[in-house]
Amino acid sequence: MAGNSIGKIFKLTTFGESHGKAIGGIIDGCPGNVQLNLEEIQKGLDRRKPGQSKITTQRKESDTVKFLSGISETGLTLGTPIGFIIENEDQKSKDYGNLENIYRPSHADYTYQAKYGIREHRGGGRSSARETACRVVGGEIAKQILKFSKVNVNAFVSGVHDISLDLNTELDLSKIDDNIVRCPDALTAERMIECIQKAKKDGDSLGGIVTCFVDGCPVGIGEPVFDRLNAELAKSMFCINAVKGFELGSGFDSVRMKGSEHNDEFVLEEGEITTKTNNSGGIQGGISNGQRINFNVAFKPVATILQKQKTISKDLKEENYQVQGRHDPCVVPRAVPIVEAMAAMVILDNILLQKTTQL
Amino acid sequence: MAGNSIGKIFKLTTFGESHGKAIGGIIDGCPGNVQLNLEEIQKGLDRRKPGQSKITTQRKESDTVKFLSGISETGLTLGTPIGFIIENEDQKSKDYGNLENIYRPSHADYTYQAKYGIREHRGGGRSSARETACRVVGGEIAKQILKFSKVNVNAFVSGVHDISLDLNTELDLSKIDDNIVRCPDALTAERMIECIQKAKKDGDSLGGIVTCFVDGCPVGIGEPVFDRLNAELAKSMFCINAVKGFELGSGFDSVRMKGSEHNDEFVLEEGEITTKTNNSGGIQGGISNGQRINFNVAFKPVATILQKQKTISKDLKEENYQVQGRHDPCVVPRAVPIVEAMAAMVILDNILLQKTTQL
Amino acid sequence: MAGNSIGKIFKLTTFGESHGKAIGGIIDGCPGNVQLNLEEIQKGLDRRKPGQSKITTQRKESDTVKFLSGISETGLTLGTPIGFIIENEDQKSKDYGNLENIYRPSHADYTYQAKYGIREHRGGGRSSARETACRVVGGEIAKQILKFSKVNVNAFVSGVHDISLDLNTELDLSKIDDNIVRCPDALTAERMIECIQKAKKDGDSLGGIVTCFVDGCPVGIGEPVFDRLNAELAKSMFCINAVKGFELGSGFDSVRMKGSEHNDEFVLEEGEITTKTNNSGGIQGGISNGQRINFNVAFKPVATILQKQKTISKDLKEENYQVQGRHDPCVVPRAVPIVEAMAAMVILDNILLQKTTQL
Amino acid sequence: MAGNSIGKIFKLTTFGESHGKAIGGIIDGCPGNVQLNLEEIQKGLDRRKPGQSKITTQRKESDTVKFLSGISETGLTLGTPIGFIIENEDQKSKDYGNLENIYRPSHADYTYQAKYGIREHRGGGRSSARETACRVVGGEIAKQILKFSKVNVNAFVSGVHDISLDLNTELDLSKIDDNIVRCPDALTAERMIECIQKAKKDGDSLGGIVTCFVDGCPVGIGEPVFDRLNAELAKSMFCINAVKGFELGSGFDSVRMKGSEHNDEFVLEEGEITTKTNNSGGIQGGISNGQRINFNVAFKPVATILQKQKTISKDLKEENYQVQGRHDPCVVPRAVPIVEAMAAMVILDNILLQKTTQL
Repeated sequence: MAGNSIGKIFKLTTFGESHGKAIGGIIDGCPGNVQLNLEEIQKGLDRRKPGQSKITTQRKESDTVKFLSGISETGLTLGTPIGFIIENEDQKSKDYGNLENIYRPSHADYTYQAKYGIREHRGGGRSSARETACRVVGGEIAKQILKFSKVNVNAFVSGVHDISLDLNTELDLSKIDDNIVRCPDALTAERMIECIQKAKKDGDSLGGIVTCFVDGCPVGIGEPVFDRLNAELAKSMFCINAVKGFELGSGFDSVRMKGSEHNDEFVLEEGEITTKTNNSGGIQGGISNGQRINFNVAFKPVATILQKQKTISKDLKEENYQVQGRHDPCVVPRAVPIVEAMAAMVILDNILLQKTTQL
Repeated sequence: MAGNSIGKIFKLTTFGESHGKAIGGIIDGCPGNVQLNLEEIQKGLDRRKPGQSKITTQRKESDTVKFLSGISETGLTLGTPIGFIIENEDQKSKDYGNLENIYRPSHADYTYQAKYGIREHRGGGRSSARETACRVVGGEIAKQILKFSKVNVNAFVSGVHDISLDLNTELDLSKIDDNIVRCPDALTAERMIECIQKAKKDGDSLGGIVTCFVDGCPVGIGEPVFDRLNAELAKSMFCINAVKGFELGSGFDSVRMKGSEHNDEFVLEEGEITTKTNNSGGIQGGISNGQRINFNVAFKPVATILQKQKTISKDLKEENYQVQGRHDPCVVPRAVPIVEAMAAMVILDNILLQKTTQL
Repeated sequence: MAGNSIGKIFKLTTFGESHGKAIGGIIDGCPGNVQLNLEEIQKGLDRRKPGQSKITTQRKESDTVKFLSGISETGLTLGTPIGFIIENEDQKSKDYGNLENIYRPSHADYTYQAKYGIREHRGGGRSSARETACRVVGGEIAKQILKFSKVNVNAFVSGVHDISLDLNTELDLSKIDDNIVRCPDALTAERMIECIQKAKKDGDSLGGIVTCFVDGCPVGIGEPVFDRLNAELAKSMFCINAVKGFELGSGFDSVRMKGSEHNDEFVLEEGEITTKTNNSGGIQGGISNGQRINFNVAFKPVATILQKQKTISKDLKEENYQVQGRHDPCVVPRAVPIVEAMAAMVILDNILLQKTTQL
Repeated sequence: MAGNSIGKIFKLTTFGESHGKAIGGIIDGCPGNVQLNLEEIQKGLDRRKPGQSKITTQRKESDTVKFLSGISETGLTLGTPIGFIIENEDQKSKDYGNLENIYRPSHADYTYQAKYGIREHRGGGRSSARETACRVVGGEIAKQILKFSKVNVNAFVSGVHDISLDLNTELDLSKIDDNIVRCPDALTAERMIECIQKAKKDGDSLGGIVTCFVDGCPVGIGEPVFDRLNAELAKSMFCINAVKGFELGSGFDSVRMKGSEHNDEFVLEEGEITTKTNNSGGIQGGISNGQRINFNVAFKPVATILQKQKTISKDLKEENYQVQGRHDPCVVPRAVPIVEAMAAMVILDNILLQKTTQL
């Protein structure tokens, strides 16, 4: 109930404040006897970790995952819960004393204090995006299991501030990690990087868009009417820090379309049902239809900027404050593995659930 | 698990195919000893029912709710589950025989068949938007309970095809029901109605946008990290038929903003903390901050159009088909009470849950 | 959360007060495309209904179930929620006026009032065992689906007051319904019936024991560590009215045994693993081991007796009161189908869940 | 779903095999801003740890809990999830090689293998009672929070093999820990200890009974109809290793009672409603009535004995085997803190849930 779990069958629960001893989690409901590649999981984490390039925060943290249970010595899942921790190395390196009584604008300081009657102010505590590292652990495991069923999840950056990737061109998904911004088009990527570097120099931050494709999802996945696959995907994306919008398939553009244009005509392709267009984004009536599931996630410019700002203190006084040092000028490059993780967990969870729908 | 419930404390489970004997539901977890106004609930249903105006489907159905349990003779909630049914009057009036073997484009026929190995083809069965009537029952009860805490939920139409309401002007929410399209600005409403009538004449359908405001929500509501208030709202909207996009506060526009513009500065107003701007849309870190919660929901043009279309049959043959008679050229006017219902249930559910967060 | 649902995959939610318009429920998560026999379901209900014999309450109620959704015209499950109602025929026939302000001893009047701040006093409202009729509907459906997998659930009366059935003799389960007390041994049954008739004449009530056997449950069912199959069975029995005890296999007798006597030795039988004894009651480590699952459920003498009693009123005054008319002198004969229903739902639910445990 | 969580609001999820790196858990939904005493939690664990006395297993393990999140530096709960681990010190000290292919009688080896398609054989893996240490952590936190509301949970040993404590005498609960068997009557305790020592010498094991009293539970706690307080307690006890029976209040003895004897007459005591007798065991209609909640839990003689036994191997061959070294001749002394932990978590969980039942 208290919100730190996601999934029905494949269920991740996470814990941890950004400056406590460790963050970590438990994956319950992972199928037994599945061969995992633990090195690949760490590689997934490395895509999210801070300090990985000149356009992310320069904070250094190795984000090494340590598995404590649920996996045999040879990497086979036991079916039992997979417990893991990621130690917080950076936990004492910074003095957050001056933030103890300050509610930073557009951060969660004020709301956490109101909700729980107390808050951990160091590094944002539980509200820090550091928590998402645990999701990447869950997501990488989900991605490995999905690959056994030929389901692939790929996310990439399709927008940074006013620079957009043209999604109507052919995209080579193998090139996503060829550049530090994680946009599969090299030219667009370059412009995005420049744009982010400019914001970094200004101590400002920028919004962006992450697009995600799920290929190979079988027909019939998703639980109407309230737990539709699109609804679960929407929720899973909106629980990532800084997300302000989600759209599936034709998304907000569908508003200006007519039914006669928007309907996805069924056609046969090599004897199999497919659709001529994919405005539905691979989901109809809340259930996957076998086409590519594609969606966009809008990220706001993150709240931490290095410019001077006004705010209110815990004892209701007006204050000026300014953050020193390091910040993420645009989160979308690091958000890519998080979007993939959330999508992979949702898809796997619903594939497992579908096994119960027919005898 | 099977997806027909929503909510944690205040939990609605619905049942019913569009052409079975009845649809209905159970509300579990409604607080006891609360005075309900049952007539107001029926009025809410009347805002959703078909045949209510010239721009909705002409199908006639009275949608009368019948409460079976959980409410005393004087309208007090008993704390026990509230069971209710809405009989299907129109259930035998139409011959759906020709649809038995057809997968209608952009409907859920094909996906339901794949998911369950069987489907009720009459009127779309469970995938019909008729099911949402049950949500309006739950939502109207939630709205009545929220009003005791001075929380108000209002939705309205802000876009129809290429006609948009300017959300930066002062809106008079009391005028939402003054016109049949449910747009609070009379002039814009008129243009929207014209536009829908044109589509109706063409046998085509149009997309639209519903905007929702939640006013008076206390600070501290919502459960991070996975069940953030925004994530629950996103999910609840995406489980409405035909929804393709959701955005909170600054939404997709935030992508092109800088942090220095986007941050909502905290200020004091009559000794209370408030924010100068509301790009956050009333939610920070997944928790309400006391400001107006505002979001937009994008609806695609519905799949039922009266034009001839190509498709595939159950036995994998190409078919032409054409629906006769009645259709909803644009669902947003009827979607308004559904959006309100889902929002109200989510907010109430999280307000009840918050009671457990501190001793 | 509010307690009116049971099951994870195959989930029953019930509603209804004993003297409201109807009781009913929703079964969500029933697998699709399964052939049901609706007449058999009604027969199950007839085994529970009041007035069925001289040793049950003489109250007459036909308990006719009416299915509203989730089942096709030919009795195939649709995979969608199965909604059903049972109308309350007896709802106006009795004047409960004098009970409005009385807390009957060992009934739930006082505790419901405290919990919800209000209570429906007519016929016990929600706390009436009438609610269990809805469970029989769910249980009969579960039993039919289990039979496709050759799993059989049989309960019978093994104790009434001081008369016990010898469980170490060979029992013929086909004879359970040969007598009105539902004890498979004719001689013991006769003594039980006499004993109950004596109590009835005295206006008193008696306790009893229902024993349940689940045969054919596959190995590997149940979810340790908290949702063990035995734990779920224990819970499911303890949510039946008047239950005071539950024991699995050797049960309370195991206390006086030694490990060397109690351990169930594994042996081979026709090449398959089986156990020499079954003190485990078919469950080891919370998971079924393929042997017969057997357990006993202790029922107290029900609280409604026709003798004069003292009690306290709502306004805290001492009162004498006496119930007139009809009562169940011993509930175990009517509890048999309820025990079967709960067991069947738990077993089916866990069999469905097990499908998700391996890829 | 996969069974490693318990609780609705105050929710414990555990992980860990007995011979992996660590066991641990996450408590989600612990109210914020509550002062904890971490040393007391460790003391609770010490009551459960192996090697604590001459009548428990001589295996030595310090069972030191390490909190990783959710608690401030001064011991205040943050409202966020409390993550913790207990490292496995003994993990490499023993060679379990010979058990890899053996299914030990009345252990969970065979059933785990069938369920998950794989099993961790060292020390029983996940099925080991070692996992219950994590529950004690959750339970001790629950007990501390309950004490703020004057709710006290005390368990003690009331039976060992054929030696029973007379529960009708006045018991001094402060004396429970005065002896190593945890029976509050010194004389009975001595006889129990002797009895256990005899079994230990024989390499055999004995069953026993733990009785639990919950005092001070407010009226109105528990969620009918399926999640009754008694049902939740029954489940929580049956998820402890080796439990075979559970009874509330009059329990199995109620079978031989008449309603006229069994009914608990309401009386006034200093202006407050109380009952003359407490056959109900403090719960009526699934809801607490303010009286002492009391129940008995039957434990079988544990399966590990030091005598030679026959069994079957993984490749279906008959085998003889004999465990060397250390075993728990009777688990009830160490089960006392586990029973308290489970009861405390269930009661606290339901007290928190009750906050949502009225506005």
